[in-house]
Amino acid sequence: MDLAVTLDDNSGVPLHRQLHEELRRSILSGRLPARSRIPSTRALALSLGVSRTTVTQCYEDLISEGYLQAAIGSGTFICQHLPEELLRAEPVRRSPKLNPPQKQPLRLSAYGNRAHNSARPERRRPDAKLSFGHWRPAFKQLPLRHWRRLVTRHSRSNGRAVFDYSEDSLGFEPLREAIAAYLSRSRAVQCEPGQVLICSGAQRAVDLITRVLIDPGDAVAMEDPGYLGARQVFMAQGADLSPVRVDESGIVVKELHKNSNSNIKLVYVSPSHQFPTGILLSLSRRLELLAWAAQQNAFIIEDDYDSEYRYGGRPVPALQGLDQNESVIYVGTFSKVLFPSLRLGYLVAPPRLVEILARAKWLVDRQSPLIEQYALTDFINEGHLERHIRRMRTLYDRRRNALVDAFSEYLPSRVSILGENAGMHLMARLRTDLGDQELIARAAERGVEIVTARPYYLRSKYQGEFIFGYSNLSEARIREGIRKLSQVLNLIDDF
Amino acid sequence: MDLAVTLDDNSGVPLHRQLHEELRRSILSGRLPARSRIPSTRALALSLGVSRTTVTQCYEDLISEGYLQAAIGSGTFICQHLPEELLRAEPVRRSPKLNPPQKQPLRLSAYGNRAHNSARPERRRPDAKLSFGHWRPAFKQLPLRHWRRLVTRHSRSNGRAVFDYSEDSLGFEPLREAIAAYLSRSRAVQCEPGQVLICSGAQRAVDLITRVLIDPGDAVAMEDPGYLGARQVFMAQGADLSPVRVDESGIVVKELHKNSNSNIKLVYVSPSHQFPTGILLSLSRRLELLAWAAQQNAFIIEDDYDSEYRYGGRPVPALQGLDQNESVIYVGTFSKVLFPSLRLGYLVAPPRLVEILARAKWLVDRQSPLIEQYALTDFINEGHLERHIRRMRTLYDRRRNALVDAFSEYLPSRVSILGENAGMHLMARLRTDLGDQELIARAAERGVEIVTARPYYLRSKYQGEFIFGYSNLSEARIREGIRKLSQVLNLIDDF
Repeated sequence: MDLAVTLDDNSGVPLHRQLHEELRRSILSGRLPARSRIPSTRALALSLGVSRTTVTQCYEDLISEGYLQAAIGSGTFICQHLPEELLRAEPVRRSPKLNPPQKQPLRLSAYGNRAHNSARPERRRPDAKLSFGHWRPAFKQLPLRHWRRLVTRHSRSNGRAVFDYSEDSLGFEPLREAIAAYLSRSRAVQCEPGQVLICSGAQRAVDLITRVLIDPGDAVAMEDPGYLGARQVFMAQGADLSPVRVDESGIVVKELHKNSNSNIKLVYVSPSHQFPTGILLSLSRRLELLAWAAQQNAFIIEDDYDSEYRYGGRPVPALQGLDQNESVIYVGTFSKVLFPSLRLGYLVAPPRLVEILARAKWLVDRQSPLIEQYALTDFINEGHLERHIRRMRTLYDRRRNALVDAFSEYLPSRVSILGENAGMHLMARLRTDLGDQELIARAAERGVEIVTARPYYLRSKYQGEFIFGYSNLSEARIREGIRKLSQVLNLIDDF
Repeated sequence: MDLAVTLDDNSGVPLHRQLHEELRRSILSGRLPARSRIPSTRALALSLGVSRTTVTQCYEDLISEGYLQAAIGSGTFICQHLPEELLRAEPVRRSPKLNPPQKQPLRLSAYGNRAHNSARPERRRPDAKLSFGHWRPAFKQLPLRHWRRLVTRHSRSNGRAVFDYSEDSLGFEPLREAIAAYLSRSRAVQCEPGQVLICSGAQRAVDLITRVLIDPGDAVAMEDPGYLGARQVFMAQGADLSPVRVDESGIVVKELHKNSNSNIKLVYVSPSHQFPTGILLSLSRRLELLAWAAQQNAFIIEDDYDSEYRYGGRPVPALQGLDQNESVIYVGTFSKVLFPSLRLGYLVAPPRLVEILARAKWLVDRQSPLIEQYALTDFINEGHLERHIRRMRTLYDRRRNALVDAFSEYLPSRVSILGENAGMHLMARLRTDLGDQELIARAAERGVEIVTARPYYLRSKYQGEFIFGYSNLSEARIREGIRKLSQVLNLIDDF
């Protein structure tokens, strides 16, 4: 145990008295807990650079005062019970939360004030036994054996670079090459590895982009309803947010033209599987959006968060692949195709933004963890990623079907499903007279958690839609959950 | 292989012609590389949701045009050599870097512009065979066996939470408890686990703090010479930087009082082992600094980056432990006690800043990777961290002594060492007529890299000091390096 004690040779107070005072305070404040053993006089003297006599004197005083007790042959211990009268001695420095200092105003930056008002981590109720409120990967099916093997491979002693600081602010180059190739074949994204920037997730990517492009008061547009995490980043940055409604073809691009604030610098879209509606941005809307961005000299963030999962129908290429004007910044993540706590994602920058994003990333964050980048490179190059995605695609397809079938079976004619046959969640309207908060509460009584799309609406009118995540629920649990939900709905509505 | 192809049912152009055009472009642009195999007609038809006939027709056309060739029994391949005349057909969409779009002005935010001017990842020469220019941990001695075991332990299938999103923006609670206890006993830091925020390294912590406290034009003070990474963060944020000189007792606090800009909101110090000078901030200066901050209602960032390594003398408690006014934000990192690419660090916030820092972290970055947080918790609680630190302390002590002895042996009377007997580097003046750039070049000729302290100076006068990192060099290599350096110095100066 290193006891860190402050002694001042120049203070005029004898060292043994300073030491006595320090130890006394430490014991009374609980920093040295009752019944714990303190170092021997020899060890402490050596550690503090004082004479053994100094320490011995000090210990003897503390023993006689009742703070310490010596056990023959075992050492010296802090007494379990401290003398009462000593607790009422001169005030000791306690941990700040017990003695709040006199109130001084907290002066935050403008960003600090906005962040303080905007972001609240959602404290959810402890996981209901059966929750449709998550759209996370199936944890039972994670490819952990391969992943562990690759992490172990790169945590061995013959590595050097893998443990070290890196100067490559874009991220591990072989990983960027693997990602560029993967994106080209699976998403028709056109890029060189030098345009790929590894970061710790999509949230990080959106914040990085926003910080280098958007000043307070600048106009940013996004889908409405749209992804709340992105909205919070834009608002914390002080953007003037223009929500744009979504119809059955996706974001209504002509409303970007009509917008009274015509100086929109950035628009955020999720064109493969709009969050939360699940709608696919049609080809003509894509071309409209790209034309608008080119004419406007605006950037588009394409958040492609779960595009690997489409069931039936053709794979849909990324918007970025159609972009001929360096407008699109493509954001992807491994949170949904591997696991969320890995914190690895990437953005693909148009060439004219590569340098500034690399520098900003370097300033803020240096690099992402390297062992995982090495492991992920092998994971992609050895084919495990695409094999895993194919397996999960099949699994999630089955689970979505189970959900849709359960709707038909238990809630016939009550459910209208929106959006594409894709992804890890769907949005649906439920026909019922019950208010949504009431429905949520009654479902919770039966151990089922459901969530609405309300938090994602800004200006468009929330129409009572619910979001059902199914990717991490077995088919049996999905059926059970919908059956229980139907009990609530049928019970109430048949009254 | 998923071929992502854009087909439009509504376009009026027959699907087989659209497909033909898409494939042709993909082949000519190199997105489908020469000699690679394309999917069977059946597989592609299934994947695209078109009839097999459509695909077959398309493939036959491409074969007759010379783009594809069929190998009986093996499948269909893209030709190695494409017909020349076809390369001069209508222009195809190439990757953007080959056809730069017409130049549109790049409109960055104010932060973007400052970041663009300020931060440049230092591209170092490839590692010289023998470099004193790094102060990174000894990689050969990393405790990898224990670390790997713990990472593997937490990458097993029975985990759930360890793979998932977390709502705890401060970081994994058991890790925060372990860190709080560790800091209390080793650094006399006073805090509850609820004041600890896990982040991806000290750079991240400094940026987070700066972003929520500092607006462009706000005054920030730091030691001069001082840590360049911190300076870059302050400048990118638009701070009005006040460099304050350092003497043999550390930062000269009375210059904070005298400073014409008397509204300093934040000061950045490294009091245990000032970077780069190695000086220890004396007790009286610590108390002065804390009194100044209290009166000023300013915050102090205490960067305690390698404080675990002190050789001889008493352990020095953190500044934070003396703070009674919630002024000090303590920043620590595992980069130097474990390994840099792990990207785990933390800050200890005074209670009044916990909420805003937690929210800002959530906004920007959600969480740090969980498997490593779980592993690190066990690593600390099972005693491995402190055992490893003790071993490294002994090792680095020996290495520092080897360096000092080598100075005495090979460069007698030429070297004045500054700062404390601590850390992973030391700063020293070399008495020589040779200019420092010349010395660096001649040392490089002999395969030895040395670096100066010049980059860390802002306004104070650089006095020709060099920085010698020794933690990742064996004693033999240290001797060899100084011997070679002496050859340069003795050769030149004796001319």
